[in-house]
Amino acid sequence: MKLQPLGDRVVVKRVDSETKTASGIVIPDAAAEKPDQGEVLAVGPGKTGDDGKVRALTVKVGDRVLFGKYSGQTVKVDGDELLVMKEDDLFAVVVK
Amino acid sequence: MKLQPLGDRVVVKRVDSETKTASGIVIPDAAAEKPDQGEVLAVGPGKTGDDGKVRALTVKVGDRVLFGKYSGQTVKVDGDELLVMKEDDLFAVVVK
Amino acid sequence: MKLQPLGDRVVVKRVDSETKTASGIVIPDAAAEKPDQGEVLAVGPGKTGDDGKVRALTVKVGDRVLFGKYSGQTVKVDGDELLVMKEDDLFAVVVK
Amino acid sequence: MKLQPLGDRVVVKRVDSETKTASGIVIPDAAAEKPDQGEVLAVGPGKTGDDGKVRALTVKVGDRVLFGKYSGQTVKVDGDELLVMKEDDLFAVVVK
Amino acid sequence: MKLQPLGDRVVVKRVDSETKTASGIVIPDAAAEKPDQGEVLAVGPGKTGDDGKVRALTVKVGDRVLFGKYSGQTVKVDGDELLVMKEDDLFAVVVK
Amino acid sequence: MKLQPLGDRVVVKRVDSETKTASGIVIPDAAAEKPDQGEVLAVGPGKTGDDGKVRALTVKVGDRVLFGKYSGQTVKVDGDELLVMKEDDLFAVVVK
Amino acid sequence: MKLQPLGDRVVVKRVDSETKTASGIVIPDAAAEKPDQGEVLAVGPGKTGDDGKVRALTVKVGDRVLFGKYSGQTVKVDGDELLVMKEDDLFAVVVK
Repeated sequence: MKLQPLGDRVVVKRVDSETKTASGIVIPDAAAEKPDQGEVLAVGPGKTGDDGKVRALTVKVGDRVLFGKYSGQTVKVDGDELLVMKEDDLFAVVVK
Repeated sequence: MKLQPLGDRVVVKRVDSETKTASGIVIPDAAAEKPDQGEVLAVGPGKTGDDGKVRALTVKVGDRVLFGKYSGQTVKVDGDELLVMKEDDLFAVVVK
Repeated sequence: MKLQPLGDRVVVKRVDSETKTASGIVIPDAAAEKPDQGEVLAVGPGKTGDDGKVRALTVKVGDRVLFGKYSGQTVKVDGDELLVMKEDDLFAVVVK
Repeated sequence: MKLQPLGDRVVVKRVDSETKTASGIVIPDAAAEKPDQGEVLAVGPGKTGDDGKVRALTVKVGDRVLFGKYSGQTVKVDGDELLVMKEDDLFAVVVK
Repeated sequence: MKLQPLGDRVVVKRVDSETKTASGIVIPDAAAEKPDQGEVLAVGPGKTGDDGKVRALTVKVGDRVLFGKYSGQTVKVDGDELLVMKEDDLFAVVVK
Repeated sequence: MKLQPLGDRVVVKRVDSETKTASGIVIPDAAAEKPDQGEVLAVGPGKTGDDGKVRALTVKVGDRVLFGKYSGQTVKVDGDELLVMKEDDLFAVVVK
Repeated sequence: MKLQPLGDRVVVKRVDSETKTASGIVIPDAAAEKPDQGEVLAVGPGKTGDDGKVRALTVKVGDRVLFGKYSGQTVKVDGDELLVMKEDDLFAVVVK
C-alpha cells in the first residue's frame, strides 16, 4: 500500500536522530526524546493558487526534514507509523 | 437515494482497513480501531475561485482515501452511514 | 408572506426523512431523530465577488438538500418554521 | 435627527410581526416573542471593494427585512430604539 | 497639542446627547447614560489598499457620528478625553 | 548599538507626557500614569504588498506618536527600554 | 549537519547580550535574563506570493537580530540549541 498525498501535503516517516555520545556510545531509544526529524516518502502535486495554477512543492522524496513535535496526522500503513502534514509545517531540510 | 455533493465536497464511505494478523487470523471488528479510510462515492463539481471559475476536484469516484478521525459530517442514507467532507479534509489517496 | 433571501442565502423547509422500517411499518415522529434534510423554498441572487460580479447559486427552488444539524437561523413564517442559511452550509443535493 | 449609515450599514426599526391567532384574536405584545423583523430606515452608500469601487447595497429604504435576534447595535434616536447593522446581517427581504 | 490620526483612524470627542425631557427640563448628566455620539476632530489620510492607493475616509472634521459604546482607544489630550478609532467603527453620521 | 526595524515596524522610545499642574507644579513620576506617547527612533523599510512592492511607512524618525498602553514588544538597548511595534499599532502623530 | 530553512524561515542561534556592568564586571549568565538576540545562521529562499513569485528575505546570514522571547521552534543540531522562525517574527536587525 502506498499513499499519494493531496495538494500541498507530504508523507513523512520519522527517523531517529543519531543518539550517540561523544565517545560513540549509543544511548538506547527510550532514553532519548522522540525525534522530530523524518524522511519524505511522498509529496503532493502542490497547492492550487488563486489563479488556478498548481505550485509544486519545494521538498522532494528522500529529503531529510525537520518539523514540529506535534505537526501532522499520524496514519498507520502496513504497520509503519507515518505522518501526513502540509509542506508549510516543515521547518527545514537537513543537509548532511 | 443518491447524494450529489455541493462545491468542493465529497461523499465518502468508511471502509475497514484489513484487520488480519501476519498469520492471517482476522481480528473481530470490535478489537480494531475505527478506520479512517474510505471510498469516494461522489464528488462535487468543485470550488468557485475568486475569478468565478470552478476548480474541479482532484479525487474521483472510487478512490480509496485517507482522512482525519474526526473529519466530515455523518449522514445516514438508506441505512448506510456516510461522511460528507471538503476535499481539503482528505490527506491522501491510497494507491494499492 | 414570502421571503426573498439576500446574497448567497437560501430558505429551506425541513422535511422528515422517510421513517419506515424494512417491513414498511412507519415509526412515529417522536421516535426518529430530527431530520437534517430539507426542501429549498427560495434562493438569493448570489454572492458578489471581489470583481463586483454576482455568482449565482448552484441549488434551485425545489431541490432536496442535506445540511448540518445546527446550520442556519430558524425563522417563523405564517406558522411554518423555516431555516435561512448560506448555500455553503448545504452539503449535498439529494437525488432520488 | 436622522442617521446616515456609513459603508455597508443599514438603519433598521424593529416592527412587531402580526400577533393574531387563527381566530383573529390579537395577543398582547408581552405574550409574543420579540420579533426580528424590521423596516429599513436608511442605507449606507455601500462597501468599498479592493478595487476602490463602491458596491451599492441590495436592500432599500422601506424594505421589510429579517435579521438575527442579536444582530446589530441598538441606538436611541429621538426616543426610538433603532438598530444599526451591516447588510450582511440581514437574512432576507419579506415580500408581502 | 493636536493629533493627526494615522491610516483610516479618526479622532472623536464624545458629546452629550441632548438630555431634555419633552417639557424641556434638562436632566443632570449623572442621570443619563454615557452617550456614544461624538464629533470628529481629525481624520487620517485613509487606508492604503492592496494596490498601494490610499482610500480617503468618508467622514470629515466636524461630522457628528455614532459609534459603539466600547469602540476606540481613550487618550487624554490637554485634559480632554478623546477617542481614537478606525472609521469602520463608526456606525453612522448624524444628520440634524 | 542601533536597531534597524524590519518590515513595517518602528522603534519607539516612550516619553513622559508633561506632568505639570495648571500652576506649574511638577508631579513626581510615580503619581502619574505611565504615558503612551513616544518618539520614533527608527523606522523599517515598509511592508511588502501582494504585488511585491514595498510600501514605505508614513511616520518618520523624530515623530512624536501615540500608541496603545500594551502595544509593542519591550527591548532593552544600552540600558534604554525601547518598544518595537508595527506602524499599524500607532494611533496618531502628535502635532505640537 | 546543516539546516536549509524552507520558505520564509530563518535559522537563528541565540547569543548572549553582553552582560557587563558599567565598571566592566561581567555578571555570570545565571544572573542575567535569557537574551532574545541571535545570529542568523541560514535563511530560506523566501515566501511564494499569490502571483507564484518568490520574495527573497531581507535578513542575511550573519545578521544580528532581535526577536520575541517566545518566538520560533527550538531544534537541537549537533548539540547546539537553534531556533527556526519565520522572518516576520524578527523585529529588527542590530547595527553595531
